[in-house]
Amino acid sequence: MRNFVLALTAALSFASLANAQQQQQTPGFVQASNPPATQPPVAPITPAQQRTIDRLQAAALESDRAYGIVESLVTEVGPRLAGSEAEARARDWAVAMLRANGFSNVRIEPFTLPYWDAIREEAHIVSPGIERPMVAAALGGSPSTPEGGLTAEIVRFPSMAALEAAPNSAVSGRIVFIDERMSRAQDGAGYGVAVRKRGRCAPVAQAKGAAACLIRAVGTDTHRFAHQGGSSRQAEGASLPAMSISPADADVLANLLARGAVRVRLDIEADIREAAQSGNVIAEIRGRERPEEIVLLAAHLDSWDMGQGAIDDGAGVAIITAAARLIRDLPRRPRRTIRILLAGAEENGVHGGAAYGLAHASEAANHVVALESDFGAGRVWRFDTRFGESAMPYARAFQRALAPLGVLPGNNEADGGADVSAIKDAGAPVVDLSQDGTDYFDYHHTPNDTLYAIDPAAVQQNVAAWATFVYLAADSDWSFRATPAR
Amino acid sequence: MRNFVLALTAALSFASLANAQQQQQTPGFVQASNPPATQPPVAPITPAQQRTIDRLQAAALESDRAYGIVESLVTEVGPRLAGSEAEARARDWAVAMLRANGFSNVRIEPFTLPYWDAIREEAHIVSPGIERPMVAAALGGSPSTPEGGLTAEIVRFPSMAALEAAPNSAVSGRIVFIDERMSRAQDGAGYGVAVRKRGRCAPVAQAKGAAACLIRAVGTDTHRFAHQGGSSRQAEGASLPAMSISPADADVLANLLARGAVRVRLDIEADIREAAQSGNVIAEIRGRERPEEIVLLAAHLDSWDMGQGAIDDGAGVAIITAAARLIRDLPRRPRRTIRILLAGAEENGVHGGAAYGLAHASEAANHVVALESDFGAGRVWRFDTRFGESAMPYARAFQRALAPLGVLPGNNEADGGADVSAIKDAGAPVVDLSQDGTDYFDYHHTPNDTLYAIDPAAVQQNVAAWATFVYLAADSDWSFRATPAR
Repeated sequence: MRNFVLALTAALSFASLANAQQQQQTPGFVQASNPPATQPPVAPITPAQQRTIDRLQAAALESDRAYGIVESLVTEVGPRLAGSEAEARARDWAVAMLRANGFSNVRIEPFTLPYWDAIREEAHIVSPGIERPMVAAALGGSPSTPEGGLTAEIVRFPSMAALEAAPNSAVSGRIVFIDERMSRAQDGAGYGVAVRKRGRCAPVAQAKGAAACLIRAVGTDTHRFAHQGGSSRQAEGASLPAMSISPADADVLANLLARGAVRVRLDIEADIREAAQSGNVIAEIRGRERPEEIVLLAAHLDSWDMGQGAIDDGAGVAIITAAARLIRDLPRRPRRTIRILLAGAEENGVHGGAAYGLAHASEAANHVVALESDFGAGRVWRFDTRFGESAMPYARAFQRALAPLGVLPGNNEADGGADVSAIKDAGAPVVDLSQDGTDYFDYHHTPNDTLYAIDPAAVQQNVAAWATFVYLAADSDWSFRATPAR
Repeated sequence: MRNFVLALTAALSFASLANAQQQQQTPGFVQASNPPATQPPVAPITPAQQRTIDRLQAAALESDRAYGIVESLVTEVGPRLAGSEAEARARDWAVAMLRANGFSNVRIEPFTLPYWDAIREEAHIVSPGIERPMVAAALGGSPSTPEGGLTAEIVRFPSMAALEAAPNSAVSGRIVFIDERMSRAQDGAGYGVAVRKRGRCAPVAQAKGAAACLIRAVGTDTHRFAHQGGSSRQAEGASLPAMSISPADADVLANLLARGAVRVRLDIEADIREAAQSGNVIAEIRGRERPEEIVLLAAHLDSWDMGQGAIDDGAGVAIITAAARLIRDLPRRPRRTIRILLAGAEENGVHGGAAYGLAHASEAANHVVALESDFGAGRVWRFDTRFGESAMPYARAFQRALAPLGVLPGNNEADGGADVSAIKDAGAPVVDLSQDGTDYFDYHHTPNDTLYAIDPAAVQQNVAAWATFVYLAADSDWSFRATPAR
């Protein structure tokens, strides 16, 4: 009882908590057994909803549907570069798959994007010694090298910051080599730091008169793969050829440079076109009471092309689809509309997410909440929100519903995901069902992005977490906005 | 005392144990504390020898020389295909390295071999769906495919035995795909089984009228690499193009075949020449009393060319060289000659080992014992011999000397290693300092054969074990032959 009073006191400190205060007296009000004084109360989950959640979680944890979806995508389509014929095939696959799963309003929303593909992407150590190949990948957006390749001496920098601090004379005419390593972190925090060299090497090196850019691949593994990924484009002021090389090749370069001068030849043939066709694939479960209100579930259909696009982002496609399918199979549809967005062309610039934001600007305010699955296939370990402060009791309700799956409470600084960022920027609340990404960057954007990188049990847990969140968000009348939209 | 009598009884059961029986009364005779009745006695290690062994082991376990040698080979030479210019560079590197380490009689013994290299080795799934590449490697000895590649329907067999049992009508005109998996084992026992499909697919499939051979790569990993390796050659009756593909690509093929017909295009351009130059590099520590008696230490210099040749067999080169160097640094050279053989052209047919056998046929009987390090960089976990029965007390002495390094007693069916097989066939005893190969075939013959596959501490333990065995064998007058050579 003491705890209950403390919780009430805490609740009263929130400005617009009329709704939660009212609910505290209802039988459905679930009270934390020992909440700290500063915790908001927990919004009520009705017994009927809780039974549904229990059933959804049990069904998810014993279903292999999600794994079957990603297996199908990998087997029947394979890699699917943004704007490619393979990506078009992935859209056809998605339409058929979503219809077979019984969703409504399945459709493609087309858009165009600038196309980039590497037809040839080779790098060799020319001297000292016998010429030998490195395992290399052209960075997305890189121009072609001249016919016969581009050969120059290497100048190594231990970090992007060291390149930025270097005088032009140290760089001019050379191939810049940024040998910075990436830190492993459960939440992927190392990526934001490491990816700077991928995006910024070309424009910074170009301004200093360099011939080209080479980076130690953005990844946490030590396998002989060069992680792919976008770099700065000509439109952003960069026109330097840019490549990444595997850790072992980066080490050979560094160890050779410790002995003397090293010359390298880069050979890139890029297929660059002004406009190529892509599209978003949409499907829905129409809400039974408030069909105009949308809970938006996103993943992306495209992938880099050295791997099979299994964890990036076949897993996301599978997780959100399987979760929505479980909800569709319920005896009664939720109140609000659940919308699946399988975005095109995420990898080379979030073109699908932007196209969705444009196409759906008029209904932006109808988006109750948005979330994306695009961080591999690791277990959901944390639930983060970006809600108005008045909505924190709802955050706590979701936390409680997710707790049986081993999901920890997170913060209120959720990202949402790249493909829902346009909708987020238009004011929609977002959440993250944050996946354990400890080993995500071992596989990310490499040939090793295959089904072997997926643990089927972790995928089941993801589906359970998604079904829980999505069902509860769609079957409630809760508003997560700072100022409720209606 | 009872045990001592039992051991004596056992010793008497050996025909030619005069030497060991005599030694049982000497103070240096080391007796097992509790040997089973069937165990031979342990030949004596003198206190001075034991002190030297202790010193060698301590020095080995704190030295980074071996790691430095393999780092140097990987960095300064890199991959070195048999008969290539890179292999010639590796010989020059080895001569300089062995001289710098103070060995005597450093020399190259040249030989020629048939040359094979893959200039292009591509495989694509042509249908169903969008054409997409597989991660593939041409098998050593494979002929080129016709201009534009070879396209045919796939017929899958779950094992080499299933192909052998198949009627010609099931195979004719098709690309045979052997989808057999390899078992992981500490002693590498899975390799002998798995490698059959690599060597036998081409001739067996050819006899049944197949168009080409494709195999699930011979390896225990699930990474996206196609393990290289030799296949049957035209000289051996095979003229079918043959490739291996990565596990994930093999899975896609199998999963597509479960849905319907699959067509694949193989495209190999092989550089095949009658004769190319290779050579063995030899170095010695001349024996102080019996210089004509040879303890032969082997490893091989060549490597497949997708990786860096770090564990196969840069590690072996490093381990045997560093062990011999520790012995060279002793105040007094051992009685017998220690000879290092860095063999050329092992990977594509053990040409170096055969050339050594031919060149040294006249002194074959002088080889006291031979051994090779060619199973990666894992810890030595077992010591096996192939000695005459009368020499088992010596085997036990070695076991005892190696025990502090965690090396277990093994059997008397040692292999010796490919490059000492000619000398073994000529009657030389061999031993195996058997390495833990649990993960060896994760890396073997792939691009992932880099320094990251090497644990420096395990390399130190290898050097300690090699120094122990080689010193004791070279500083004794023991004979390990069935009938002593002199």
